[in-house]
Amino acid sequence: MDHLQEKTLSRKHIYSGKIIDLYVEDVELPNGKTSKREIIKHPGAVAVIAVNDEGKIIMVRQYRKALERALVEIPAGKLEKGEKPLNTAKRELEEETGYTCQNLTHIISFYTSPGFADELVHLYMAEGLEKMNEESCLDEDEFVEVLEVTLEQANKMIEQKEIFDAKTAYAVQYLTLKMAE
Amino acid sequence: MDHLQEKTLSRKHIYSGKIIDLYVEDVELPNGKTSKREIIKHPGAVAVIAVNDEGKIIMVRQYRKALERALVEIPAGKLEKGEKPLNTAKRELEEETGYTCQNLTHIISFYTSPGFADELVHLYMAEGLEKMNEESCLDEDEFVEVLEVTLEQANKMIEQKEIFDAKTAYAVQYLTLKMAE
Repeated sequence: MDHLQEKTLSRKHIYSGKIIDLYVEDVELPNGKTSKREIIKHPGAVAVIAVNDEGKIIMVRQYRKALERALVEIPAGKLEKGEKPLNTAKRELEEETGYTCQNLTHIISFYTSPGFADELVHLYMAEGLEKMNEESCLDEDEFVEVLEVTLEQANKMIEQKEIFDAKTAYAVQYLTLKMAE
Repeated sequence: MDHLQEKTLSRKHIYSGKIIDLYVEDVELPNGKTSKREIIKHPGAVAVIAVNDEGKIIMVRQYRKALERALVEIPAGKLEKGEKPLNTAKRELEEETGYTCQNLTHIISFYTSPGFADELVHLYMAEGLEKMNEESCLDEDEFVEVLEVTLEQANKMIEQKEIFDAKTAYAVQYLTLKMAE
């Protein structure tokens, strides 16, 4: 057993939603004292780094109700029940941007907010992009604007605080490092 | 008004905790349809990239109850009420690692989980590190192990999936890019 482990003494289920569940746990700390932990359970998500033939990064601008504003992000979406992350990545890229891809390579998976949530984001690199002819079939309650930006523009957008989403900032750094290789 | 905006029709307060609050909103979408949004309110947090005189990155290993496992992360912590992010960064670095620093420079602020939470993480670079003589005074319910790793080791830890925390992966990329300049 990990000597840092916190033992669950009791667990209260507060809420089950469409995307997240909330639990509150009483835990025993390594020193024997007790504390409370607020825990969000999330199904996990994917995000996709997609660069088209012109070398432009595909991004989407969408309203984020939690922030009460729109954010520019790389295409992303949560895992549906039983869905494999690779399939979610393919689906979200198509639904949000209207691009299909020939290849998806796993780059990294990371927890976004380990202090209170178990959301794990799987990041993929899409290659062999092709614009679909038909209109992209967005989710009924999803409204996005597609942006295509160069890496230089993306880095400038970070500097100028037009991008401040963790996975997107990571993706821009990833591509910048790849270019420097 | 942003044409992507979602209008709040009603807002239900579900839970107020030590760290997070949960709301559920009925919203009107741009097409006039309605949907539900589950929203976590969080006070925001800081994270610190700290490299000591030996060129080693200071990291901490701590148990994350939401994941039921320990994670290796850069020092981080949430903002206390009314606390300026710069002061939180200084405090968390001292409390978690036992290092003081002469300078803290803001690198980037990013949202970690914009799909359901408003947590904004402010990332700082600490310079002029000095190990404090006294024992670091950890929060009563915080138990961490301090690790000091080279950039090469940190990159290897990411490859080998020993680090999979978003802000920490970002920090390692940031330092790698800085070295390549």
